Amino acid sequence: MSLKLYFAPGACSFVPHSMLELSGVAFEPNGVKLHKNEQRSPEYLAINPRGQVPVLVDGDEVITQIVAILLHLDAQLPEAGILPASGLARTRALQTLTWMNNTVHPTFTHVFMPEKYSDDEAVQKAVRAFAAQSYRGLLGEIEAMAEKASPWMTGERPGALDAYALTLLRWGGFAGIDPSTLPATWDLAQRFATLPAVARAVERERLVLNIYRPKA
Amino acid sequence: MSLKLYFAPGACSFVPHSMLELSGVAFEPNGVKLHKNEQRSPEYLAINPRGQVPVLVDGDEVITQIVAILLHLDAQLPEAGILPASGLARTRALQTLTWMNNTVHPTFTHVFMPEKYSDDEAVQKAVRAFAAQSYRGLLGEIEAMAEKASPWMTGERPGALDAYALTLLRWGGFAGIDPSTLPATWDLAQRFATLPAVARAVERERLVLNIYRPKA
Repeated sequence: MSLKLYFAPGACSFVPHSMLELSGVAFEPNGVKLHKNEQRSPEYLAINPRGQVPVLVDGDEVITQIVAILLHLDAQLPEAGILPASGLARTRALQTLTWMNNTVHPTFTHVFMPEKYSDDEAVQKAVRAFAAQSYRGLLGEIEAMAEKASPWMTGERPGALDAYALTLLRWGGFAGIDPSTLPATWDLAQRFATLPAVARAVERERLVLNIYRPKA
Repeated sequence: MSLKLYFAPGACSFVPHSMLELSGVAFEPNGVKLHKNEQRSPEYLAINPRGQVPVLVDGDEVITQIVAILLHLDAQLPEAGILPASGLARTRALQTLTWMNNTVHPTFTHVFMPEKYSDDEAVQKAVRAFAAQSYRGLLGEIEAMAEKASPWMTGERPGALDAYALTLLRWGGFAGIDPSTLPATWDLAQRFATLPAVARAVERERLVLNIYRPKA
């Protein structure tokens, strides 16, 4: 197995990035600098024509989509605990993972990249403000899950849901949401980020967990 | 295994609905009338507090999220061919399935329910028009996949991607997209809908495949 991961600091690529570190498997990390628009370079578009991270390259095969990457890694690294192995626990984890991916994540996209929804600046501004409120409600749903984490979202072992919860909470800073108002998720994120294996991914991404800045 | 499916005619619940019929497993179909707002009734909210379809009830367990439902069914009904069984073919199918679910599907939501993105009618109108254009492009990506279907999206057996492609193409009618302009997807959808097992789900939902109406 020869694995390469293309990631962007702070993006949702942190989820497979931290899972690869947790699994202990050898992989080649490749940072993509979004602020330099490297995801739009001809070299990167040759890898992923959609210009998105994450991309997992397994041998000669390019795999996109975070959920597909996680399920691909989980099938090959069953000992890593990315998701519960089977049964209802696995179904419940997949239910939350895909909800994070198809609902919470796209809601944040409206805050971060409103230009994907309109080319009119006034409309973008309205869409962003409305989505920031929706996002607050969705993080509240994650907070209710984090309150039941014992100690991790899927039980005794840290896994993909903890990494995604950290990422979504961190993004909340951009939406004006103070992580300390979501104490169970904030505690979970801090515990997850300081696991020695995960800390290597945090360090490589130079990730600052709390990016919330109160308005002056 | 005791299975119940809550579906709404024409909604994405058609994907697990058609897969259950294809698998041949016994299940209890429960229609939810969205035009009567039944998904907001106390009875339905007691089952799924998010008020969405589909819901799969397996024994006493309520499972939401289309991708989680499909993976749950696939684990229990491996012979049904919902997804390719393993390896890269499975990863590729999951990549497309999750992209349909997190990108194509939410883009349509902007056309169908723009009130989820703003409470201002002018903003809703702008968001809807912009999304209808984006949706056309995304159906173009599905058309490129359907052109390579041989004969189905994931190979020799009909599966979840064919059902989702049919649903997304059908929704295009609401976005002003004539399915005949996407001939490979339209052919795929017609072939899929007339498989005898799938036809039972089509009949139960009273599904009209082409809902496009040219502007007068």
